[in-house]
Amino acid sequence: MRPTPYLHLETRFKRVHVLRSITHLLRWDQEVMMPTGSASIRADQLALLDMECSSILHSKRLAHLLDRAETAEANLSDWQRANLREMRRIWQRSNAIPKRLLNSLHRATTRAEVCWRRAYQEDNFNLLVPLQERVLDVVREKARLLGERLNCAPYDALIDEYDPGRETREIDSLFMALGRGLPPIIDLAVEAQASRPFTLHESKISIARQRDLGKKLMKCMGFPFVKGRLDESLHPFTEGTSEDLRITSKFSELDFMTGLMGVLHETGHAMYDFGLPAEWFFQPVGRDRGMTLHEGMALFIEMMIGRSREFMEFAAPWARRILGVSGPAWEAENMYRQATRVRKSLIRMDADEVTYSIHILIRYELEKDIFSGHLRVRDLPEAWNEKYRQHLGRAPETASEGCLQDSHWPMAYFGYFPTYALGAITASQILSVITRELPDVFDSIRNGDFSGLFDSLGRRVYALGSRFTNRELIEQSTGENLNPDVFLAYLRNKYLPS
Amino acid sequence: MRPTPYLHLETRFKRVHVLRSITHLLRWDQEVMMPTGSASIRADQLALLDMECSSILHSKRLAHLLDRAETAEANLSDWQRANLREMRRIWQRSNAIPKRLLNSLHRATTRAEVCWRRAYQEDNFNLLVPLQERVLDVVREKARLLGERLNCAPYDALIDEYDPGRETREIDSLFMALGRGLPPIIDLAVEAQASRPFTLHESKISIARQRDLGKKLMKCMGFPFVKGRLDESLHPFTEGTSEDLRITSKFSELDFMTGLMGVLHETGHAMYDFGLPAEWFFQPVGRDRGMTLHEGMALFIEMMIGRSREFMEFAAPWARRILGVSGPAWEAENMYRQATRVRKSLIRMDADEVTYSIHILIRYELEKDIFSGHLRVRDLPEAWNEKYRQHLGRAPETASEGCLQDSHWPMAYFGYFPTYALGAITASQILSVITRELPDVFDSIRNGDFSGLFDSLGRRVYALGSRFTNRELIEQSTGENLNPDVFLAYLRNKYLPS
Repeated sequence: MRPTPYLHLETRFKRVHVLRSITHLLRWDQEVMMPTGSASIRADQLALLDMECSSILHSKRLAHLLDRAETAEANLSDWQRANLREMRRIWQRSNAIPKRLLNSLHRATTRAEVCWRRAYQEDNFNLLVPLQERVLDVVREKARLLGERLNCAPYDALIDEYDPGRETREIDSLFMALGRGLPPIIDLAVEAQASRPFTLHESKISIARQRDLGKKLMKCMGFPFVKGRLDESLHPFTEGTSEDLRITSKFSELDFMTGLMGVLHETGHAMYDFGLPAEWFFQPVGRDRGMTLHEGMALFIEMMIGRSREFMEFAAPWARRILGVSGPAWEAENMYRQATRVRKSLIRMDADEVTYSIHILIRYELEKDIFSGHLRVRDLPEAWNEKYRQHLGRAPETASEGCLQDSHWPMAYFGYFPTYALGAITASQILSVITRELPDVFDSIRNGDFSGLFDSLGRRVYALGSRFTNRELIEQSTGENLNPDVFLAYLRNKYLPS
Repeated sequence: MRPTPYLHLETRFKRVHVLRSITHLLRWDQEVMMPTGSASIRADQLALLDMECSSILHSKRLAHLLDRAETAEANLSDWQRANLREMRRIWQRSNAIPKRLLNSLHRATTRAEVCWRRAYQEDNFNLLVPLQERVLDVVREKARLLGERLNCAPYDALIDEYDPGRETREIDSLFMALGRGLPPIIDLAVEAQASRPFTLHESKISIARQRDLGKKLMKCMGFPFVKGRLDESLHPFTEGTSEDLRITSKFSELDFMTGLMGVLHETGHAMYDFGLPAEWFFQPVGRDRGMTLHEGMALFIEMMIGRSREFMEFAAPWARRILGVSGPAWEAENMYRQATRVRKSLIRMDADEVTYSIHILIRYELEKDIFSGHLRVRDLPEAWNEKYRQHLGRAPETASEGCLQDSHWPMAYFGYFPTYALGAITASQILSVITRELPDVFDSIRNGDFSGLFDSLGRRVYALGSRFTNRELIEQSTGENLNPDVFLAYLRNKYLPS
């Protein structure tokens, strides 16, 4: 029997996936192992792998196979049809942007990122302005071409990369609800927590032991170390595939909690990847359903599970044993208070669960204005401070504490920021369904039994891969589309006195 | 100006080199970092990179470009002409073997290697016989096809892979000289050393500290850690390119010397790679001149420098300081005696500098007989023991201490063994020239100054890459072709009482 066009496509997309899995490993190595002087050959290696992928995705033969497979779609199973849909999606995005533009984008972001580091260190936003403008020019051109191809507004075409099918209009309305709902929760939480102080650990905690603790907790949660690792890097991240997945956290001897929360956040990412449908490992339909869902799954484990009283009751004895510590700082209730402390902090990366989405919606509003040209890059610091005054009641005094704190814009990640808050909403809805399905789930977690939780996450999210659209998946899993009220109710219940 | 065929070739061979550099990294990761359960995706990744290389090397366009570049050779510089010669060499070897045969070889060696591990553990050579025969069948076919293409005998075609241009006839005569010269040196050395005992360290030495010491000594020798690493693995090895080079050693808390010698051996490999001509980094002419020279450079640093009295006088104080040890075991003279102890050991990997080549020439004689069919695989254990009785005066009692100790034959590395002894001869000749040029070189080493040594190695070997044939390079560097008398004289001078 001759292979069908569809099967020919599977062969080609398998090759793309294996190439990408090599890229993942090279990126992990770059952050964790690579000697500092090897950046140049590493750039050559990554560029070559990228070129190999492109040459598969841009071939005329592939376009022809897609057309032919689509006309014979009736013969395919549901999963195969979904796979074909995802192949077309990858093809569209990849072929919308000419190589010349990709090269310009690469050059512009490489220069802007280097400049951003300096601007950040010297607290001088003006340094970055011309290069950020250049990045914006190229991003606008990319968005215009993508929008034409996907038949949507340019900015929506950027969002679509991280959250397939999501539109600005919908995000606007979701974020408006958060903008109204979050500030009163923040105020009330700060007030209520004032009478519940907590104790910070004062002794230095060895990083080797913090890693050992992280591994122990990951093992309890079911992280399969036979196909994964935990390492240390400057920023926590997850790289790899479910066949070889590597997470990192940033550990500090004087700040145990941040390192642990990094471990839990990345474990959330990892468990999603490990739970993807193994039989579709090499195919697009076997991938995760975009960054909103991925960040949602990470926030779910970090914020909703990790920063719960029951999780701390489970983790505190392990922390005391493995870290060799004792005293009031290491009581479960104290650790819970520390992990849920609400603060009107100005730094997104340090933000608590409640304030976090405020940081996101500020960035989303500014990003749309910069992208559309309504806000000039050079006016960003002032606009930033104004937004912070408006939403949090205080503004940063330096650009490094303000609009220079993130590298997303110099790196051209426009459309990425919203995924954090959309992910948090998603996570709260899934939590709501799971606690209805498994009323004792937090009791099990207190006892170190995570099997029910991950079984449910597996069935509802992980194992579906990209079988459905994002919207279908969330509706099927939670019975409704994204609903900010569920997230706000979750926060009120957790953070406000009953 | 349109690029010439030669320049088109450079572009293609650059791509091959970058792909190979990724393969190096994946292999390093596999031995040092990879989770045990990730072997399957790693095999897919390595196979894909190999396929990408092959598709470049097997393209009709490449063959055409080679032909055209060779007709216009007069316009090229000396280096470019040498580069073109090396391109043709790579092309010939790569195109001589059909893909079907490569796949058979891969399957046969994968199965034989797994079986070899079991046979070794169970001390049962018969287990391995059928799979070793299968490997031999495929290797013979490969050698036949290579020999036809290279116009030489099949076994010579295998040797040519590791030592370009070397012939069986020449090795026969070199090894006959070693077979006559080495045994009396061994006997006399053993006798002389009997009255010079040494003390072994008894306390356990932390592996972290052994690594620190290794790094310190590597730094003194000029290993550029900005583009390299030292790690730990089951067997010492070197992987990478001069832009990102990673060495490992095998450390043991109870056997400090083996770990250190592993570090020095691999540093010898690494310094050769680091010294290759940077301006030809991406091109075949910028590569090392094969395994005889590479092993030669490694043995040079481990055996001739590392196992010298002056090196131990330099290293002993660092060892005491960094390992936090003291006592008679850590005196330079004692460490020197330990590192130069001659023993009629039966294990190649533990062999001393004098006995080592005996192990090699035994393997070489057996390998030729197995390859030609004069010796049947099932008769190997008996033939092995007979050779050991003949050359060393004693034979192993088990197959695991005998013909099962190495994995080269199940892995199909026929033609590789001779390179160790040929490398040792090469190294002794280079040492002889360097000590004539720099009479104080060992005094400098005692003082931790390795600059003169590596300058000279750089000029004579490293920086020449593959500019010359192996024969030309050795003749230019040492004034003569391989000469076993220089090696024997070096050993007599070092190991026998004057």
